[in-house]
Amino acid sequence: MHAMTIPQPGGPEALVWAEVPDPVPAAGEVLVAVSASAVNRADLLQRQGFYDPPPGSSPYPGLECAGRIVALGAGVAGWAVGDEVCALLVGGGYAELVAVPVGQLLPVPKGLTSAEAAALPEVACTVWSNLFMVAHLRPAETVLLHGGASGIGTLAIQLAKAVGAKVVVTAGSAEKLARCAELGADVLVNYREQDFVEVVREATGGAGADVVLDIMGAKYLQRNVDALAVNGRLAIIGLQGGTKAELDLSTLLRKRAAITATTLRSRPLGEKAAIVAAVREHVWPLVEAGVVRPVVDRVLPLAEAAEAHRVVEAGEQVGKVVLRA
Amino acid sequence: MHAMTIPQPGGPEALVWAEVPDPVPAAGEVLVAVSASAVNRADLLQRQGFYDPPPGSSPYPGLECAGRIVALGAGVAGWAVGDEVCALLVGGGYAELVAVPVGQLLPVPKGLTSAEAAALPEVACTVWSNLFMVAHLRPAETVLLHGGASGIGTLAIQLAKAVGAKVVVTAGSAEKLARCAELGADVLVNYREQDFVEVVREATGGAGADVVLDIMGAKYLQRNVDALAVNGRLAIIGLQGGTKAELDLSTLLRKRAAITATTLRSRPLGEKAAIVAAVREHVWPLVEAGVVRPVVDRVLPLAEAAEAHRVVEAGEQVGKVVLRA
Repeated sequence: MHAMTIPQPGGPEALVWAEVPDPVPAAGEVLVAVSASAVNRADLLQRQGFYDPPPGSSPYPGLECAGRIVALGAGVAGWAVGDEVCALLVGGGYAELVAVPVGQLLPVPKGLTSAEAAALPEVACTVWSNLFMVAHLRPAETVLLHGGASGIGTLAIQLAKAVGAKVVVTAGSAEKLARCAELGADVLVNYREQDFVEVVREATGGAGADVVLDIMGAKYLQRNVDALAVNGRLAIIGLQGGTKAELDLSTLLRKRAAITATTLRSRPLGEKAAIVAAVREHVWPLVEAGVVRPVVDRVLPLAEAAEAHRVVEAGEQVGKVVLRA
Repeated sequence: MHAMTIPQPGGPEALVWAEVPDPVPAAGEVLVAVSASAVNRADLLQRQGFYDPPPGSSPYPGLECAGRIVALGAGVAGWAVGDEVCALLVGGGYAELVAVPVGQLLPVPKGLTSAEAAALPEVACTVWSNLFMVAHLRPAETVLLHGGASGIGTLAIQLAKAVGAKVVVTAGSAEKLARCAELGADVLVNYREQDFVEVVREATGGAGADVVLDIMGAKYLQRNVDALAVNGRLAIIGLQGGTKAELDLSTLLRKRAAITATTLRSRPLGEKAAIVAAVREHVWPLVEAGVVRPVVDRVLPLAEAAEAHRVVEAGEQVGKVVLRA
């Protein structure tokens, strides 16, 4: 098969389309012929050499895909050759074929194109696991979503609204904020012009946000804690603003607040399967009912993954950039 | 009645036994004639002027007591004048009488003296809520308890062992560690001589502690995170080592770990009542079965509260210092 390889870490041009050995599905895995994958920020880090795949996993980038099952490994039940699926991957989505543990497979939701289905698994699993399984966002609570126009953000807005939460988003332009508003965001913060701590306080009568979903890490750490309500939960899923920061624990203590930091890729199979099962149970019905939709900014050929990376690196997109195989 | 007042914040001598108006039980409260109270570190901070009681609550120190109900406020059911009780207080335990919301009352466990019962509510509620309701400590997990010989520590050792956890404790002397071992601690760390991060790693085959119960705050923040296992939970309940510290979020992210910080006194009535109910359901049977016992270092007359504060400030005690009214 062909896959997008990274012979030497570097800029977008480091991605090289090359012929490589076909993956072989192990016991409990299926082989998927990829019709589409999608770009995640982690792919950019992997390309730069900062986020190596876990030992034993595919060396190619790509944390999600849609496609068709073409072979079954030993002991696979409940899935058949020919099934249209999408999947959460530990890597290897930028390729013609990928081996996937059955616990990470999802059916393509009714009514979605292959490109739309490829844009869903990573964000749906990340958002559902953090907002609901980790931070326990509840109806009528307020959630602050950083990067509201990102793939994560656009899905998180819709899911949070679907459960009856009030949604505050940050983004870096009026255009992006307008798209967030269309998706249901209640309060818009242009982080280049406004202090999100102040806006959150004003929007909540001084109380603060019950949940913050953060992608900035160090740069926002103390301000995120400052923006939290009593019993608030800060869920960190990215460190785009650095890793080390000073934290005032007295604020945390006074608010009886919690800080969690998670990644999806490093979780063991069992935890991923539990998250995928929860997404299938809770998110898929909302997608099939049209309440929640993946936001696809553009679809590029997989061979043009370098251009896709350039777009995401520059933050030009709203939602996901999809790669068509 | 008489109560221990704090006319001017300061050292132990700032505590002044004085005649003050009797408290009047509001609706949903009972009036308790105090037979014993106990010293908590928060009392020392309050005496120094660093931890004022919440608005509307008793101005006198004392976060727990044992005694007898002598009057009922309006609308109180399920309790009667003459009942022997102990109670979690927002303050006012260093007094002859104290008004207590019914949600914070507990029966005196069978077989316990009044002094022992007075030593239980604050530590039982703090330990149960943090180890089990916040950090979800499970059987066969490893918990690191800082200050193993403190009131909190001595009860936490016993409760963690009772649910089948492996217990690592820190303390500052061989004598204190020996007492921790008698209570069931599996691994002993003299923090003056050993690095608890290294000892925890050795004791867990490199995995780290699933739960850390911390009283030091800033001073231990990064090392506590370093000592955590994957999916570990750091529960901070005190800031004896300062409030501000640098945190490396990449460690937290790699471990998918959580940091929480809580206080008991500031929680609203409903949350306190839920914790007290859980303690009555889960801890009281263990106390009455003799599996878990309050550790009382010494009992002093309430009029000698200044000496009791001096002992606790110097860290001379193992377990609790009780004040007899």
